[in-house]
Amino acid sequence: MKIARIVHENTETYGFVKGDKISTKDEITYQTGVPIPQSIKEFLFDGWYDEIKGKLDTLPYEENISKFKLLSPIPNPNKIICLAFNYIDHAKEQNLLPPEDPAIVLKPRTALNGTDTDIICPDFVTQLDYEVELALIIGKNCKNIDEKQAKEAIFGYMILNDVSARDIQFKDKQFTRGKSFDTFAPSGPWITTVDEIEDPQNLKLTTKVNGDLRQNSSTNNMFIKIPEIVSKLSKVMTLEKGDIISTGTPAGVMLNKPNAVFLKNGDKIEMEIEKLGILKNTIRFVNGN
Amino acid sequence: MKIARIVHENTETYGFVKGDKISTKDEITYQTGVPIPQSIKEFLFDGWYDEIKGKLDTLPYEENISKFKLLSPIPNPNKIICLAFNYIDHAKEQNLLPPEDPAIVLKPRTALNGTDTDIICPDFVTQLDYEVELALIIGKNCKNIDEKQAKEAIFGYMILNDVSARDIQFKDKQFTRGKSFDTFAPSGPWITTVDEIEDPQNLKLTTKVNGDLRQNSSTNNMFIKIPEIVSKLSKVMTLEKGDIISTGTPAGVMLNKPNAVFLKNGDKIEMEIEKLGILKNTIRFVNGN
Repeated sequence: MKIARIVHENTETYGFVKGDKISTKDEITYQTGVPIPQSIKEFLFDGWYDEIKGKLDTLPYEENISKFKLLSPIPNPNKIICLAFNYIDHAKEQNLLPPEDPAIVLKPRTALNGTDTDIICPDFVTQLDYEVELALIIGKNCKNIDEKQAKEAIFGYMILNDVSARDIQFKDKQFTRGKSFDTFAPSGPWITTVDEIEDPQNLKLTTKVNGDLRQNSSTNNMFIKIPEIVSKLSKVMTLEKGDIISTGTPAGVMLNKPNAVFLKNGDKIEMEIEKLGILKNTIRFVNGN
Repeated sequence: MKIARIVHENTETYGFVKGDKISTKDEITYQTGVPIPQSIKEFLFDGWYDEIKGKLDTLPYEENISKFKLLSPIPNPNKIICLAFNYIDHAKEQNLLPPEDPAIVLKPRTALNGTDTDIICPDFVTQLDYEVELALIIGKNCKNIDEKQAKEAIFGYMILNDVSARDIQFKDKQFTRGKSFDTFAPSGPWITTVDEIEDPQNLKLTTKVNGDLRQNSSTNNMFIKIPEIVSKLSKVMTLEKGDIISTGTPAGVMLNKPNAVFLKNGDKIEMEIEKLGILKNTIRFVNGN
């Protein structure tokens, strides 16, 4: 199933997506007779989704998805964990050794942003860069789990753009501040549940800037594979329902490139991960005083 | 005012602290006639504290605080922002140049911990270290504020121990994972409101390990002063009610010390900041598999 968080008649709600059509929460309730909750997090993680997923054969998909504004799928996650680097091709271009454990940075929830929105950047940032990443959405609270349990803890996948101000990242040495600006975590366009993706370790992922292909890799280039990422992180911290884990970016970012062309006002970014949709954003620089 | 979050008859609640006495939420409601809410965040940040603070002259402080378990004062903050380094004496011992802007790391909310509890560390960590820090609690949502507005955005202060696994910090280069373990953010013992602290930039802060004085400095040794920290961070991200900003640690940590003696099982840490109380924790190593 693909589940989008949307705005419908000025209210935040959600729906199931099929092709370019959507069936909204109200329709789902009507068809299934189950009074599913208003909150998408409650719906996804507190048993409601499991309760209705067998009853969806007859669901009508009458509304066109283009009628709705799509929001970042998970509102107010407790954590947004981003792997600092995890791709073989990216390590090669950056001269980095393979990581033994997942080095991470946390992004604040105030950085979240949906598709078809602006990435708003203060003009004191001089080196704005993109990072396409496969993001996992955690479906249950867990701690100290092994790789088998880790697979069961993942509810779904989406795209996340780990937008990064490289100049600030280098100045600080720590990457956090340069990745923490409001709107620097576009995610979506929707959640795709795990049952729809036979092999998450074999998905093409690309970034285009103004139509120009910049990143073009596969999730099979990850050093640390998904179950190991989740298991290892769970040995550090309790993972909670709705936590987002973004699994690192492949080659093709501007970081450390000779003749790097960083993002500028009006640039249009399109990120695609096979089977997960397309995440589209536009760069907008503003006066940052 | 000093405000503690406590457990009372198996329920989370809060109260005002005076010396070794406490006046609980129920007593405050009884004395003031104002039905203050159950949630400490709602009480502090949604106008209730402001409504009753003029009516507190006659408050009885009948209960002894030792009767109650104290919790980390802010439950589920949206952000815990820790400055990577910000003290002149600490920079000297680490051979670091003064920072122009606040380099930061975020800790997950799952790391929070109160006073009189254990810091629980898996035994694969080999270099466990402490960091006493003055933590600010943000009282209002704000973005892009100047230093004058920043002063008004701070609700209060508390102690935070930015517990750090140095071995992981160095291995990852990024400090986040080594600072993100559950229980690695003891904070408290309570919140002291801004009106009680005439000069937050002139407070002694110390760490003792098993009675041995390890850190002994003053908040006047900060490079970037408090209003500038808050103002600069607000130019990156929206600060929200209840966000915690921990302002860096002074000299005296074990990081990079020749003959460093890292924390071991059973060590007792006492951190004191003048006028803010004492934060006490015990180290407990567990099997981390």
